[in-house]
Amino acid sequence: MAILLEGKSLTEKIKNEVRAEIAKIGKTPGLAVVIIGENPAARIYVESKKKDCLAYGLKSEDFTLSEDAGEEQLLALIGDLNQREDIHGILLQMPLPKGYSKEKVIRKIAPAKDVDAFHLENMGRVVTADEGGFKPCTPAGVMALLDEYGIELVGKHVVMVGCSDIVGKPQALLALHRDATVTICHSRTVGLGTMTKQADILITATGRLGLITADMVKPGAVVVDIGINRGADGKIYGDVDFEAVSAVASHITPVPGGVGPVTRAILMKNTLEAAKRAWENV
Amino acid sequence: MAILLEGKSLTEKIKNEVRAEIAKIGKTPGLAVVIIGENPAARIYVESKKKDCLAYGLKSEDFTLSEDAGEEQLLALIGDLNQREDIHGILLQMPLPKGYSKEKVIRKIAPAKDVDAFHLENMGRVVTADEGGFKPCTPAGVMALLDEYGIELVGKHVVMVGCSDIVGKPQALLALHRDATVTICHSRTVGLGTMTKQADILITATGRLGLITADMVKPGAVVVDIGINRGADGKIYGDVDFEAVSAVASHITPVPGGVGPVTRAILMKNTLEAAKRAWENV
Repeated sequence: MAILLEGKSLTEKIKNEVRAEIAKIGKTPGLAVVIIGENPAARIYVESKKKDCLAYGLKSEDFTLSEDAGEEQLLALIGDLNQREDIHGILLQMPLPKGYSKEKVIRKIAPAKDVDAFHLENMGRVVTADEGGFKPCTPAGVMALLDEYGIELVGKHVVMVGCSDIVGKPQALLALHRDATVTICHSRTVGLGTMTKQADILITATGRLGLITADMVKPGAVVVDIGINRGADGKIYGDVDFEAVSAVASHITPVPGGVGPVTRAILMKNTLEAAKRAWENV
Repeated sequence: MAILLEGKSLTEKIKNEVRAEIAKIGKTPGLAVVIIGENPAARIYVESKKKDCLAYGLKSEDFTLSEDAGEEQLLALIGDLNQREDIHGILLQMPLPKGYSKEKVIRKIAPAKDVDAFHLENMGRVVTADEGGFKPCTPAGVMALLDEYGIELVGKHVVMVGCSDIVGKPQALLALHRDATVTICHSRTVGLGTMTKQADILITATGRLGLITADMVKPGAVVVDIGINRGADGKIYGDVDFEAVSAVASHITPVPGGVGPVTRAILMKNTLEAAKRAWENV
């Protein structure tokens, strides 16, 4: 049976590091959480961020605009948050409702406060391996998890299934910058199993429950599952047929409890980093 | 024998389109070419850009700083060029001499005039497939050449050998955005031939003469050679063993005469595009 790549101990470690650093500095990083429209999903999102901030020793402040507030009001709010010295990170729940230009809104966030790494400038920094920006939390979390379990990337073949702007593409680039050979697959890929079966490290983020079956995995491969899907039984599952693939892989992330908690920890770490840069520049 | 993917006719076509559009608009796009230090390579670079601008109906202006001018003077020059209404594109010969921060200098170029697509913002736009920026000239040239010869990308396996910021990585992203499955290989790739032999479209940009031999190419593959290397005989060669691979591939770019001229044409096209956007915003 494969070794479980669990996020819990790494998350605890990151939490302790963040808390210790904040205690040492004696100042509190602040995260603004912006949501548009009151709905249960948005509320859960805000509450989870509040809870994380509390646990890590950060200050959180949430801002809820009504769905018909309009783009101008959202841009004005972001403008205010960009100016505030006690706010170091700005989080905007996606997707935006209709009538809001995602591009315009994201561009408005100061790159130095863009802890989710949505801004073009931070995307550019991911391409050039420039450490002066922020890395998107999920791919950065995957890298941290692989490192935590001592999984080497140099010369390994990483196959990424999924090519979103915020997960698949930056994940491929982060692996490339660690000298892995990288393949990016997606819904138009012909012969997906032939590709995935070559992977030393297989990473999937498709949102398709049960997409990755045991016959698509090379014996001894490391399997990282970023997918979050709700099964017919109401429970959360990844993209991977966990039971069957566990019998083939050397390492596998559980869902939930694998990449997810690390992603949340990286957001806290990014916010601390944003605050430290701001404090250094004062 | 493989069909030659020659750049000449596409280059002529782009040239005629650019000239016709400039004639129609009745205004002249301007390109600034900045070099630091007088040396034969820099001089050849400037002269080739001047020649292209003349042929395409653009205005070129060149600026030569002495090697010990220093970063401040270069930044001041770029600042001036950013302001000038008759200059729409700014080209900076790379690499910069020692003592100049590449990052700082590139960031100084206004993204709207960054026709070489070095700026982080334009790199970010390559990640998100945002057409509002500029694409790096070489990978954009390769895509134009593939299109010119009717080579389909959807579902094809593109293997990119080389992973520079300005060629390999954006090339992989541009192919991905056309729904190809993409693999990026490099000097740390284990079993390069096994990877390249899977390619429906093999693109190489390594600067290693003769790296790609016939046994590394799948019969019927399309082979695009971006490499520019000088042979022991003083002539220019690509990364591909041209004679032998021509017998295996369905299509192959000659070097010189393949991607190179198209790259130069794309730079002219980007500069016209920059000018059109500037004129629209007046």
